[in-house]
Amino acid sequence: MSAPLGKVYLVGAGPGAQDLITLRGARLLARADVVLHDALVTDEMLALCPQALLIGVGKRCGQLSTAQAFINKQLVDAANKYALVVRLKGGDPMLFGRADEELRALEEAGIEVEVVPGITTALAAAAATKQPLTKRGVARSVAFFTSSTAPAHPDHVAIPDTDTLVQYMGGREAIVTAERLLAQGRRADTPVVVIENCSRPDQRIVRLTLATLAHGLSAAHGPVLVMLGDALKLREHQADDAGALEPVPGRLSA
Amino acid sequence: MSAPLGKVYLVGAGPGAQDLITLRGARLLARADVVLHDALVTDEMLALCPQALLIGVGKRCGQLSTAQAFINKQLVDAANKYALVVRLKGGDPMLFGRADEELRALEEAGIEVEVVPGITTALAAAAATKQPLTKRGVARSVAFFTSSTAPAHPDHVAIPDTDTLVQYMGGREAIVTAERLLAQGRRADTPVVVIENCSRPDQRIVRLTLATLAHGLSAAHGPVLVMLGDALKLREHQADDAGALEPVPGRLSA
Repeated sequence: MSAPLGKVYLVGAGPGAQDLITLRGARLLARADVVLHDALVTDEMLALCPQALLIGVGKRCGQLSTAQAFINKQLVDAANKYALVVRLKGGDPMLFGRADEELRALEEAGIEVEVVPGITTALAAAAATKQPLTKRGVARSVAFFTSSTAPAHPDHVAIPDTDTLVQYMGGREAIVTAERLLAQGRRADTPVVVIENCSRPDQRIVRLTLATLAHGLSAAHGPVLVMLGDALKLREHQADDAGALEPVPGRLSA
Repeated sequence: MSAPLGKVYLVGAGPGAQDLITLRGARLLARADVVLHDALVTDEMLALCPQALLIGVGKRCGQLSTAQAFINKQLVDAANKYALVVRLKGGDPMLFGRADEELRALEEAGIEVEVVPGITTALAAAAATKQPLTKRGVARSVAFFTSSTAPAHPDHVAIPDTDTLVQYMGGREAIVTAERLLAQGRRADTPVVVIENCSRPDQRIVRLTLATLAHGLSAAHGPVLVMLGDALKLREHQADDAGALEPVPGRLSA
């Protein structure tokens, strides 16, 4: 077997807006021979690589792991055919991105690989809402986590004990989180910010509390990011340009 | 008093490399009238705004909070004199960036403000080392935190309980963290990655374990990022291009 031709870059696309990718990521896209992209990656982002062959490797949560194995194989195949391969992933590749499995497959095949970080949704959401995730004297730690609502799931119990919490893919799961935090004694008026389609034209932000989270999410569709903690309290003179204080029924969903 | 002239953008510069800022951040720099920047921001980053008046507002940890009050005043003054003001902060503004205090001061002065996220050092470090912070079946949560080594400090006790831990500004503090995690029963061979000057020409990465962390940091100078957890284990075929397996005496320091 001959040596692989190409090099693969795992590139974080960021939350969605075209201009929230890094310069490094944008330059690689402009030079790429082929781009394998998530379903999460937007069309305006793909406009940065008009010259490249585009391969959608969209994978929705809940699908079988064979889907990941197929993506791994497509990556290896691409590196054997093309010089510059970009694997474009929503957010940051190293956070909830299953990068480990893709890196492992490429390394086993002897293919050179490099990782380019991306803006993870939590930081884009903090910027959009102008709410810092840490705050002197109030919040010195923040956790990013996912969890399953399935009671039999081993991760069902894991809610981190940090000052600020950010739950990725937190729709119905966040309702369970809120119930359990309340049971553990977190204050009912602890601020909660829910963000959907962060940084995109249809971005929607809802401000709730631990007590109102379940109601606020009840109408919902699609995955959302849920942030909670005292650091997220609105400042005295802060214009709430981020969104409605009350959820608009039917637009945000769990 | 007349209405303020300008708008202020709190922009995350990312970890240091010029091409790890976002497109949005780079475009704002290219248009800025004035840029107030941290000591952490590199000269090559400032080369993106040759037209702008540069004001260094460097602040090192341990200084009094009056320094922050002075930065706030400089921001308000700049917005009263210039149309496009960029406050350029190392990493991401909303994570350990004291953004809350700057936002509060600007809002109180009636100045329009927007936040542009940046690549936080933890994600740049994960990319540089090719070690994901989360990993299916191994690590479903990650915490970013800082802590003081001062025993009387109220935050002395706060080590999050997540699968992966990232300690910012974690030199001597990380040694205390390691001792306490060992006392709590975390495995002595838990992988630790220490990164200094992430993404810069003098970037240095050292792979250690909880047991060897204290020794590995003992020679050190300057703040480092310390990541630990089972997700950071080297993969079977991973080239350890990230750095030496053993610390080089005298180069890395606490």
